[in-house]
Amino acid sequence: MGTRMTDAGMYAHLWGTDELAAVFAEEARLQTWLDILAGLARAQASLNIIPATAADAITAWARVELLDLDYVAEQTRLTSHSTLGLIRGLQRILPAHAREYVYVGATVQDLTDTWFGIVMRETGAVVWRDAWTIEGMLLDLAARYRDTPMAGRTHGQPGAPIIFGFKAASWADEMRRHLERLRAGRDRWLVGQLAGAVGVLGFFGPQGLELRARFCREVGLGDPGISWLTSRDRLAEFAHVLAMLCATLARIGGEIYELQRPEIGELREPARAGAVSSITMPHKRNPEASEHLDTLARLVRSHAALLLEGMVQQHERDGRAWKAEWVALPEVCLFTGAALGMARQVLADLEVDEQAMAGNLTRYGDRLASERVLAALSDRLGKHRAQALLQEVLSDSDSDLAVELSRRGVATVEEVHAWAARPAVDAATAMVDQVLRRVGAARKAETDTWR
Amino acid sequence: MGTRMTDAGMYAHLWGTDELAAVFAEEARLQTWLDILAGLARAQASLNIIPATAADAITAWARVELLDLDYVAEQTRLTSHSTLGLIRGLQRILPAHAREYVYVGATVQDLTDTWFGIVMRETGAVVWRDAWTIEGMLLDLAARYRDTPMAGRTHGQPGAPIIFGFKAASWADEMRRHLERLRAGRDRWLVGQLAGAVGVLGFFGPQGLELRARFCREVGLGDPGISWLTSRDRLAEFAHVLAMLCATLARIGGEIYELQRPEIGELREPARAGAVSSITMPHKRNPEASEHLDTLARLVRSHAALLLEGMVQQHERDGRAWKAEWVALPEVCLFTGAALGMARQVLADLEVDEQAMAGNLTRYGDRLASERVLAALSDRLGKHRAQALLQEVLSDSDSDLAVELSRRGVATVEEVHAWAARPAVDAATAMVDQVLRRVGAARKAETDTWR
Amino acid sequence: MGTRMTDAGMYAHLWGTDELAAVFAEEARLQTWLDILAGLARAQASLNIIPATAADAITAWARVELLDLDYVAEQTRLTSHSTLGLIRGLQRILPAHAREYVYVGATVQDLTDTWFGIVMRETGAVVWRDAWTIEGMLLDLAARYRDTPMAGRTHGQPGAPIIFGFKAASWADEMRRHLERLRAGRDRWLVGQLAGAVGVLGFFGPQGLELRARFCREVGLGDPGISWLTSRDRLAEFAHVLAMLCATLARIGGEIYELQRPEIGELREPARAGAVSSITMPHKRNPEASEHLDTLARLVRSHAALLLEGMVQQHERDGRAWKAEWVALPEVCLFTGAALGMARQVLADLEVDEQAMAGNLTRYGDRLASERVLAALSDRLGKHRAQALLQEVLSDSDSDLAVELSRRGVATVEEVHAWAARPAVDAATAMVDQVLRRVGAARKAETDTWR
Amino acid sequence: MGTRMTDAGMYAHLWGTDELAAVFAEEARLQTWLDILAGLARAQASLNIIPATAADAITAWARVELLDLDYVAEQTRLTSHSTLGLIRGLQRILPAHAREYVYVGATVQDLTDTWFGIVMRETGAVVWRDAWTIEGMLLDLAARYRDTPMAGRTHGQPGAPIIFGFKAASWADEMRRHLERLRAGRDRWLVGQLAGAVGVLGFFGPQGLELRARFCREVGLGDPGISWLTSRDRLAEFAHVLAMLCATLARIGGEIYELQRPEIGELREPARAGAVSSITMPHKRNPEASEHLDTLARLVRSHAALLLEGMVQQHERDGRAWKAEWVALPEVCLFTGAALGMARQVLADLEVDEQAMAGNLTRYGDRLASERVLAALSDRLGKHRAQALLQEVLSDSDSDLAVELSRRGVATVEEVHAWAARPAVDAATAMVDQVLRRVGAARKAETDTWR
Repeated sequence: MGTRMTDAGMYAHLWGTDELAAVFAEEARLQTWLDILAGLARAQASLNIIPATAADAITAWARVELLDLDYVAEQTRLTSHSTLGLIRGLQRILPAHAREYVYVGATVQDLTDTWFGIVMRETGAVVWRDAWTIEGMLLDLAARYRDTPMAGRTHGQPGAPIIFGFKAASWADEMRRHLERLRAGRDRWLVGQLAGAVGVLGFFGPQGLELRARFCREVGLGDPGISWLTSRDRLAEFAHVLAMLCATLARIGGEIYELQRPEIGELREPARAGAVSSITMPHKRNPEASEHLDTLARLVRSHAALLLEGMVQQHERDGRAWKAEWVALPEVCLFTGAALGMARQVLADLEVDEQAMAGNLTRYGDRLASERVLAALSDRLGKHRAQALLQEVLSDSDSDLAVELSRRGVATVEEVHAWAARPAVDAATAMVDQVLRRVGAARKAETDTWR
Repeated sequence: MGTRMTDAGMYAHLWGTDELAAVFAEEARLQTWLDILAGLARAQASLNIIPATAADAITAWARVELLDLDYVAEQTRLTSHSTLGLIRGLQRILPAHAREYVYVGATVQDLTDTWFGIVMRETGAVVWRDAWTIEGMLLDLAARYRDTPMAGRTHGQPGAPIIFGFKAASWADEMRRHLERLRAGRDRWLVGQLAGAVGVLGFFGPQGLELRARFCREVGLGDPGISWLTSRDRLAEFAHVLAMLCATLARIGGEIYELQRPEIGELREPARAGAVSSITMPHKRNPEASEHLDTLARLVRSHAALLLEGMVQQHERDGRAWKAEWVALPEVCLFTGAALGMARQVLADLEVDEQAMAGNLTRYGDRLASERVLAALSDRLGKHRAQALLQEVLSDSDSDLAVELSRRGVATVEEVHAWAARPAVDAATAMVDQVLRRVGAARKAETDTWR
Repeated sequence: MGTRMTDAGMYAHLWGTDELAAVFAEEARLQTWLDILAGLARAQASLNIIPATAADAITAWARVELLDLDYVAEQTRLTSHSTLGLIRGLQRILPAHAREYVYVGATVQDLTDTWFGIVMRETGAVVWRDAWTIEGMLLDLAARYRDTPMAGRTHGQPGAPIIFGFKAASWADEMRRHLERLRAGRDRWLVGQLAGAVGVLGFFGPQGLELRARFCREVGLGDPGISWLTSRDRLAEFAHVLAMLCATLARIGGEIYELQRPEIGELREPARAGAVSSITMPHKRNPEASEHLDTLARLVRSHAALLLEGMVQQHERDGRAWKAEWVALPEVCLFTGAALGMARQVLADLEVDEQAMAGNLTRYGDRLASERVLAALSDRLGKHRAQALLQEVLSDSDSDLAVELSRRGVATVEEVHAWAARPAVDAATAMVDQVLRRVGAARKAETDTWR
Repeated sequence: MGTRMTDAGMYAHLWGTDELAAVFAEEARLQTWLDILAGLARAQASLNIIPATAADAITAWARVELLDLDYVAEQTRLTSHSTLGLIRGLQRILPAHAREYVYVGATVQDLTDTWFGIVMRETGAVVWRDAWTIEGMLLDLAARYRDTPMAGRTHGQPGAPIIFGFKAASWADEMRRHLERLRAGRDRWLVGQLAGAVGVLGFFGPQGLELRARFCREVGLGDPGISWLTSRDRLAEFAHVLAMLCATLARIGGEIYELQRPEIGELREPARAGAVSSITMPHKRNPEASEHLDTLARLVRSHAALLLEGMVQQHERDGRAWKAEWVALPEVCLFTGAALGMARQVLADLEVDEQAMAGNLTRYGDRLASERVLAALSDRLGKHRAQALLQEVLSDSDSDLAVELSRRGVATVEEVHAWAARPAVDAATAMVDQVLRRVGAARKAETDTWR
């Protein structure tokens, strides 16, 4: 049994998804590693570096379920070598004629970096799909609540009105930029590695580059052009895009968390049947998925930072930063996957209380319309004089704005009420429409498949 | 006098450049802020929101040298408001008819975020130019040392041969990806902000969006489409690209630092006339610029992380993360500028000791050719049997490889010497050529001006 | 003029204090450096390493106001040496007989590390005093509001009652632990450095250690026992204690920020006369000091992390991490100083609205008493059966708890009301009393002076 | 099978130890959780809160091997509650009379925070023991190599001589400070949590504090005095001490990594029989354990930073930061355990090549004695004139120092040779002796058991 709560039976669903577990689970990972070795063998056979029969045998027998994993682990510890245990384990099950032809001329990093390329491909596909789907949900929210006024809030304090659709459009707009980044980065990231001992494929002489090209095709990745053993910007960039994406989800989650306070009551994350928020306070209904988005964002950015730090490598291989990637990259992927899945659930049934939004807007009399009153009074008094006057009047939290302004002879009560009456959200609506139009057009040319 | 050593007379050159100081120095910053206010006034006048005469006056008088900065600072402290001191300072010098028309309907963040857009534009231009220039230097190194063998090193230990041009090509290849990112991000980043109190431009009613479009044109930035008061991925992404770039420079610097060890002696950063490495050990010649690249990379990634963390904002304005940007974004820019300038100097006159490189390759007899010997022996013994045999022979650090293999009857002394004689760097050369070709082609369509 | 907004005339008060500016301002720093050089000279004279007359002259003339700072800066740049410019500047003003006797046998790090010792001494004294004073304020709050019930909140949702004094006591308890850490670390941190070229004081032969002891006495610091040129845990620990302290202030600030939401309205940070929260929304009263505590905490922990990272140094001096300390340690000090000053102001006049606290407790009927009702019902039904029943009843947010329980025959309406009537805060009060007693006793043996 | 490579059969030994796996493995953790519940039941029975028979039954049946873990996991997912699945799983195996008496009045955090206390106790004991043992090894190195001169190195360049024992003493001195911190923090960290719904133990009325005291005694932890649900400095401090400790190990590892370069060859980490450094370059012998110390230090400080960030919590429970602790604290413990174990192995058989050390000292002629020559010449020429002269002479890297000085008439060749002949390491030896004495004395009063 594992030692990490992230993999615990009770809690794994909080820190990953079944779908990504199918990429990262030990057996799945080992099978992918074996597939890479088989791909290498086939590429080598195609160049007569090894016999075709050996490649066939490796392809046929490189099955994780055939391996004696205890033996593999034991040999790994014995040799202190990251993949020699696996090689020996594989040799044991291969027919004798093929044993010497497995993993020829390649190094650990050829295997693990190519796996990283596959990991980014598989995870990236999930991320694109979920981010794209979430963007759709956010656009739906923006459209549905295009005309739902609510209080804007700055510094935690209610201010001038916005509309809820505008908030959702801002989320969608941010998500769109992540999708752009995912698309732009794809070809940079999805490359294989075949570098050999020090990056120059010395084992293979002049055949090296052709072998790499064929190998990359075998594993469904691009050719990197030049070895990237200590050139790690791809990982840092991929992780940072995911970390930014999770930050967006955390921003959305944080908004729900705050607006679900019953004192505000404008949003609520959906309650699942059977869910129990508290075993000591049965009345509680906690926005736990929303807050978990924040937790996951912290973890992802922390691991992304390790990958950025890890770009500063030495010479032709540098175990110090490289091995940290073994921990950091999978965590970035798994936590991001969990966050996306959770965000989809939260957004699918987000409860929006339009009545509470309307109520909070008028709860403080005309005060939340102070920007409009300022604008109107500015025409009479000048902007800064108007601001100073209003500041004075409103600093008494009990004052009635219309009465006070009328008492000071700068406006009638009716005028003030008229100014305050209609939320000044024309531009908000226009921005929503513009986002719907622009992002909608981009989506027309796309599907939920990453390309 | 300031309190930060980064601005100290003695040390400012280590932590910024004159060129970027001209962007960030207090007076320069304030002038840019005043220019933004003037641009706002002109845009407003063009829509009859304020009188054209007011806009003219603001444009004419908004000069930092006219401001009483002590008064501005005092009023800032008095009001606890970030820009009201500036407004009052400006009103004082404006003709009476224009005083009420400065900074109408805009908020602090409209000013500072638009400034951020300008900061990214100005810094980005310097970064592009320097990164592009450095890429050129790296390509020159790759071409010049295309046929200069040296020891590859993994885990700090000399291994199979590479060529120095290959190392330089790997740097250039990484730099190219940063240039791609800089180009791809440009339009995302260079936008203005005019959002008003809560992001919906309520002060301006239906004119809001047209005003924003004109304002952005006035300040030479793109229109953001939707307010980004709490949507901060642009900053996080920009900073991360710069942090990755600095990491690349730190990787180069680290390589020089290590290879400049006299025990290795393959590279040396240029010594400037007059430079003194140590006042206690006059023999010293330290790679201090190279190591400073590492220092700067640490600082940049630390501040970039603050900007990533700062993406998780609340509601329509969130001072907690926003104010941290005031510190982090300029630091990212200034430190990156310093790193690029320093890297240019180091690379311009980098000393490459080809003789030392050759000497180190042969210093350990045939040992560094073990990969080639392994490849050759693999044909006879099988790869893994050959590896085990060589592992055994070479584990004695005094053994003579050729003698031992001959003694074991698997190869003659002459054969081993022949295998070991020529560095197996065909693929390295081919990769250098490929990078030169590919990056060279990309550069043909570019200049050192960011577009 | 500087390039950092943290030092800008308008904003420096947000990022430091006058008191710490007097430690870190360029002139102050240079004077301290000169004092260190004078102390070194006196220590050396006392051992006849240099003539007493030279030490006297150095002591007399080492005044920053006599230095030509432009020359110092120019020579610093010319030599690329961190202190040779200063030496030359000082030599210029010294009488001829003393010129050769300044800065004898010492290195840059002897100067800057000793300055770090002084910086920690001076900053630590301010931190202790302010933290101690704040602890006193928090204890006062705990005592004053020992019997003021309010809603506890978990996951952002109102839950069972607590008392406000309990919240304040938790803050005080946390602050006490920081004070313990400050006291325990003091002797570890306040040491000088005299290490020479590589840490072994080779310049001074057998006199080295005695010279170091005298030097440390001259500058009012402890003797480190062994050179710490690349042993930097002291800095990492000091910074982390300050970062933790700022985190506590950010926790307090965050609480004020949230509870100041008018929808909750239980706390408000004091409003200063003249303060303007918004120039577009004159009704606003923002908790900007409270939220700035969060900003500062982010910056401090980011710089503290640099100092932790910087512990991994190489050999006998390592410029990469060391120079990052030049930026990070002062920032940690200045930002912490700013945070403490701001927290003192906020807490000195914190507005506590007991009526709002009481109102929020009863606002949701008996729901917030669900823990007490559960406890009472547990005696009848068993704990888990009671919890399940209450969960079911309370999942309908409109249900009347007493009516529903009575309808189900498990309690009468009167019983439920009785259970819910009195906040179950006995233990809270007892904990407050215990903190007041324990921390009060500790404070009896202390003053606001760090020892 | 898990998804984290840190738990993979092949690699778990790199990221943890068997000893700590016995603390953190899922079954072990669940058993500890059950033990805590049993301890709670006994404490409650002692106060007649639940029947003694129930407590007895819970104590008897709370065995992880009896639980249906799939059911527990399923109920956890169904309820979205962190421990309700466990409660239900436990109720199922308890005799009917005890079922309602398990987990009475406590919350998730009471369980998990108390577990954190136990985790810090168990991990801290391992850390103390290993750090103490390592300190002993370092003192042995310091004593054994008290008179072994070697080149000091600054900025990566060989400088004046030190002694290897001095380097080791610096490591020991740093380790001693960590041991001091571990001792000073122990009582702060090892506390239990019994806080109830919102921290005030409302379920238990006036019995709350007495119950907590008894509960803490049952689980072998201290009483916290006041609930610490959102007061998390303990975790941040504990993690930071471990991160500093790992940084020290990384510093040691880095030194070995660099000095093991064959071009330097002064240190070598022990080679294990059967270990294979490279499958492509059989001559390689890599310092992989040494470099892994750096990897682990990165990971520990990254997770420690999460715990520091997590101090800024809201209200009476804040899932956002709290849940991140579930990941971060165990990782800190496991990675630190792995680092300590690895460091013990490396240090136990560290190979020190005194001959190489001596050889490197004289390899550059008299140059590495430049500090001594400077000291001697200073008496004749003045320190700064001497430094300038030597700087000039030595800037030609081929110059013969003695010949050049003699040619300039400032010293004879014999004088220079005499100055350069003996390494000026008197103070180094004295510092070694002082560390041996001071730390030795401290160790006399201690054992390898944490107290």
